[in-house]
Amino acid sequence: MIIVIRNDAKQQDIDQLKSYVQSQGLRIHESEGASTTILGLVGDTSKVDIDLLRSINIVETVTRVQEPYKNANRKFHPQDSVIKVGDTQIGGGAFSLIAGPCSVETPEQIVGIAKAVKKAGATMLRGGAFKPRTSPYSFQGLGVEGLKLLLIAKKETGLPIVTELMDTRDIPAFEDVDVIQIGARNMQNFTLLKEVGKLHKPVLLKRGLSATIEEWLMSAEYIMSEGNEQIVLCERGIRTYEPATRNTLDLSCIPLLHEKTHLPVIVDPSHASGLSRLVAPMSLAATAAGADGLIIEVHNDPQHAWCDGPQAITPEQFEGIVDGVKKILPIVGKRL
Amino acid sequence: MIIVIRNDAKQQDIDQLKSYVQSQGLRIHESEGASTTILGLVGDTSKVDIDLLRSINIVETVTRVQEPYKNANRKFHPQDSVIKVGDTQIGGGAFSLIAGPCSVETPEQIVGIAKAVKKAGATMLRGGAFKPRTSPYSFQGLGVEGLKLLLIAKKETGLPIVTELMDTRDIPAFEDVDVIQIGARNMQNFTLLKEVGKLHKPVLLKRGLSATIEEWLMSAEYIMSEGNEQIVLCERGIRTYEPATRNTLDLSCIPLLHEKTHLPVIVDPSHASGLSRLVAPMSLAATAAGADGLIIEVHNDPQHAWCDGPQAITPEQFEGIVDGVKKILPIVGKRL
Amino acid sequence: MIIVIRNDAKQQDIDQLKSYVQSQGLRIHESEGASTTILGLVGDTSKVDIDLLRSINIVETVTRVQEPYKNANRKFHPQDSVIKVGDTQIGGGAFSLIAGPCSVETPEQIVGIAKAVKKAGATMLRGGAFKPRTSPYSFQGLGVEGLKLLLIAKKETGLPIVTELMDTRDIPAFEDVDVIQIGARNMQNFTLLKEVGKLHKPVLLKRGLSATIEEWLMSAEYIMSEGNEQIVLCERGIRTYEPATRNTLDLSCIPLLHEKTHLPVIVDPSHASGLSRLVAPMSLAATAAGADGLIIEVHNDPQHAWCDGPQAITPEQFEGIVDGVKKILPIVGKRL
Amino acid sequence: MIIVIRNDAKQQDIDQLKSYVQSQGLRIHESEGASTTILGLVGDTSKVDIDLLRSINIVETVTRVQEPYKNANRKFHPQDSVIKVGDTQIGGGAFSLIAGPCSVETPEQIVGIAKAVKKAGATMLRGGAFKPRTSPYSFQGLGVEGLKLLLIAKKETGLPIVTELMDTRDIPAFEDVDVIQIGARNMQNFTLLKEVGKLHKPVLLKRGLSATIEEWLMSAEYIMSEGNEQIVLCERGIRTYEPATRNTLDLSCIPLLHEKTHLPVIVDPSHASGLSRLVAPMSLAATAAGADGLIIEVHNDPQHAWCDGPQAITPEQFEGIVDGVKKILPIVGKRL
Repeated sequence: MIIVIRNDAKQQDIDQLKSYVQSQGLRIHESEGASTTILGLVGDTSKVDIDLLRSINIVETVTRVQEPYKNANRKFHPQDSVIKVGDTQIGGGAFSLIAGPCSVETPEQIVGIAKAVKKAGATMLRGGAFKPRTSPYSFQGLGVEGLKLLLIAKKETGLPIVTELMDTRDIPAFEDVDVIQIGARNMQNFTLLKEVGKLHKPVLLKRGLSATIEEWLMSAEYIMSEGNEQIVLCERGIRTYEPATRNTLDLSCIPLLHEKTHLPVIVDPSHASGLSRLVAPMSLAATAAGADGLIIEVHNDPQHAWCDGPQAITPEQFEGIVDGVKKILPIVGKRL
Repeated sequence: MIIVIRNDAKQQDIDQLKSYVQSQGLRIHESEGASTTILGLVGDTSKVDIDLLRSINIVETVTRVQEPYKNANRKFHPQDSVIKVGDTQIGGGAFSLIAGPCSVETPEQIVGIAKAVKKAGATMLRGGAFKPRTSPYSFQGLGVEGLKLLLIAKKETGLPIVTELMDTRDIPAFEDVDVIQIGARNMQNFTLLKEVGKLHKPVLLKRGLSATIEEWLMSAEYIMSEGNEQIVLCERGIRTYEPATRNTLDLSCIPLLHEKTHLPVIVDPSHASGLSRLVAPMSLAATAAGADGLIIEVHNDPQHAWCDGPQAITPEQFEGIVDGVKKILPIVGKRL
Repeated sequence: MIIVIRNDAKQQDIDQLKSYVQSQGLRIHESEGASTTILGLVGDTSKVDIDLLRSINIVETVTRVQEPYKNANRKFHPQDSVIKVGDTQIGGGAFSLIAGPCSVETPEQIVGIAKAVKKAGATMLRGGAFKPRTSPYSFQGLGVEGLKLLLIAKKETGLPIVTELMDTRDIPAFEDVDVIQIGARNMQNFTLLKEVGKLHKPVLLKRGLSATIEEWLMSAEYIMSEGNEQIVLCERGIRTYEPATRNTLDLSCIPLLHEKTHLPVIVDPSHASGLSRLVAPMSLAATAAGADGLIIEVHNDPQHAWCDGPQAITPEQFEGIVDGVKKILPIVGKRL
Repeated sequence: MIIVIRNDAKQQDIDQLKSYVQSQGLRIHESEGASTTILGLVGDTSKVDIDLLRSINIVETVTRVQEPYKNANRKFHPQDSVIKVGDTQIGGGAFSLIAGPCSVETPEQIVGIAKAVKKAGATMLRGGAFKPRTSPYSFQGLGVEGLKLLLIAKKETGLPIVTELMDTRDIPAFEDVDVIQIGARNMQNFTLLKEVGKLHKPVLLKRGLSATIEEWLMSAEYIMSEGNEQIVLCERGIRTYEPATRNTLDLSCIPLLHEKTHLPVIVDPSHASGLSRLVAPMSLAATAAGADGLIIEVHNDPQHAWCDGPQAITPEQFEGIVDGVKKILPIVGKRL
């Protein structure tokens, strides 16, 4: 970590800053130029609060040399992490296809979709039992009842289940869930991150609405620092000024994350744009960019399922996407 | 709510959409132009999921006519809400000055600061016991022990206490806290919002890192829909592309919120920029823009409190700000 | 266009607004609900200033039904536009590979690169003679001299030339240039747009740093409204809050633009991230998303060309990208 | 400037980078840590292209120690710049009130408004003759004819004139204009910046739609590097994700700019939000934040001037704003 001191700093304040830094267990490599003092901080800087340093009046800039995350850092863990889920795996060259409805509604609905997406090539089933909704007046999901329906669909098809957890108090009900999803709005719900960090279960960590890549990896680090290293990152679009799509899918984060971390990265093209007709092209693009998987909203009966119908695609459309994905995978050195 | 249908929509799909809308308890006022069909939705549209409608393939645009929030809406509650806290109040012309350290550390520290800010004009004491930190390796606050120290400071000075709640499981420990703060990162932690909605205690709801004004009001609505109407909104800077400040303080939200809602709006100039030298000018600007109060980080001993020292201002600087604020208040029709 | 009137509007103000709208040559279809007046504007609304309408005090919201662009609109021109450049073409299923250095420097350099990229599969040569630089102290390009060097390279290889125009006064010097590039910073330099609109030459119009898709199409419309319909749109990354990449490449704009306009869309993966190691994966992703071409910075001699070397890739790396692109093209129904 | 080298860099590449840096006239202060090589660049780094350095594959991060602007830098010019315009001045404690209509329309209109705003306290007259419009189909201003009308209003009232220049070819027509405005969309029209840099006339430089503070100062530097040092910066709102206002007014840039530059900073509250009812509170807030002036849209006859009427305020409302501003000025140590 490198601190550039402002020109007008008093020596007394510089000395105080140096004492503070040393009190954090770091050594200082000082270099004085003609007009500028630069402090190089040597040691484990991952615990240093960079915002605090930046806010000090005598500080001009602070630059990290070491990343603030360790467990998630590829430097200390060069091999790809491979997350095993049932008979399938995510990462390390294996591509994962997770599909299912926005919300779980009835046994018929979820079992029907589960069978349809399995036939079309899905390797896991997604479905919301607890739904984070912007409005308190919107349907909030079936809750524990929804989890039971997902388990029925798992039994019927053998597909492992991915579903979202919103409240630490619900953890016991997730015992038979295969992968716990942490949603975008909870990416910095540190309480929730710590609790899933204590579980022995894969966690699918969605990127926050306007999270930087570093903040996202720090949230993964929260989970890992509690002992759970089975994390899958999921890009789902970021908030920008552009109104034509709900969010802007940031596919360049995929190769960047592959550099910075050993954790697999999948993409959710359904939530990113909010437009089902963009799901197919963005699924192919994500695959070509090097993603380790896709999580796609699929509904079974467009005529009677307006709720998750419109933003989702049909099993037939999903099958078309799987076809395209399969053709791209060998080009980027991956396999289903 | 107005739905514009795409030119190429089939009549069968339009009919299905109309059935769906009617199944939500709404009436439809249809108008067919030369080339465009427009559906006006009449009735209570607050429960309608606008993102879902937008995602329907035959839909071109959806425009809300009614706001999706009711309890927070000034249309249905024209008078300013006044939130009473101890002997003081927020809103309705009363200006609130909340000050204190980033983190509670020792009894001497918090009591010392409490006395200093009270003398300088503060009407409430802030201080963090549970700290939301980006890194799992950063100091996470004293927790319940910190709450006890805040209560000692309250006893010594009479200042009501504002402090952040992060976990529903900690609610019992907040019984004697005067105002519960919901932090920016938890603004859409709907579980937490619902639980504080069941309390009989003012809630200071910070704006999320990249929350729109409408999303923010919907989070207030979550709390209010559970029965707790004592809410203070707090602008603390939004995420933008500008790197010179940590966040961009959005002061235009103040007059806009005064139009849309009856809830008081205060401003946190300390967290917005992350630069203590901007706290004074932005405090004056927020007051001139019509804010109902300020929440400012103040530390007492800059020589030995590097932790929250640098991003905070001293009690002397705070006194200078209070002086300026007092001169501006009569110009904007408010009083301390 | 639909105008929703605020509840508290006076009839006199509504009448005045209606007179104003009618004075713009539009008819009004008024519908009065229980609590809301809605004005439907019928006629050619492309000349209506939507920002002006939005700023009127009695107006709650304004929603466009018709797009404000006509010439660029696919509704009125359903077939893909095909832009012919020399023996090659862009759009209508033909994929274009434009490559070359950031800046033109010497005859040896530009001829060398031109030959290398042609061999690797490029269909056009790019190179900067006039360089828009953030700093007045940076190298601003060779200017007219650079154009001459590009023409030498064209003669030697037969590759058509793409290069940026910044000043209307330089237009005569661009007579033998094949495609005129309008840079991101000039996307709303309306003076420049109108002048290139008078030429009979393809224009490559880069998306502005933070331009919405609609603003971008309106800039295309500026050019087209003067008579020049040979426009190629070029996505090059948008400004977001994320610091890890210089800009965020918005690939979802590709399928969206294909819906809204008949103009071809290409992608510049070099400028988007500012990181040469992301060029390959983002080139494949753009191709899979349905782009009509790529424009890539390639340098020839990394050992002695630090100026544009580092942000560019080598001809060998470019050849690898072309290989991957060629494999993806049939999957998305395109050909080189 | 400090370059942190990636851990996996080869010595040969580091040596090449060092040669390149030295070829730019800079000396290198190298420091090798346990795992990291850091290069400190000593000398005049204002000409160094930081984006180029960042894009080099062996480079981890690059941090500026010196600002890239010199003429605009307060470090080298500690006193406030004072810009004289007619009998009035901007900066150095003098507050400037610029008012007038969006567009110049008729002699009666502009003379009428000029008299009205002068009476209300304005020190300069603004008005658009050349209008940058998003749509080619919108009214583009009266052009040279509009300039003539502005000069009539100047003669009648003595108010100096501020008006926008969009095209270098129009410069001769601006000879009698007092202050040339460069609009947000032209902030990085480097051709235009260089030409106004050759004039002996104050320039009002608006912040670009999504310009960083550093980019904005670099655009000022462009003008200054040609010899014209009479620059007034004008904040007018930046592009963010928030849809409730057209742009987000960034008032924290005012104290920040006062630190970084000696140039005066004024605020345009009319264009920022696009809502005339926010003009009054944001004018007071900008004044309290330390602005050196305001530029406000005022129209005279709301009943018959729908064109610029609605987004503007009336002379009576302007007078109310001037009253409030006058009361705040002594609190922040400024005078009209």
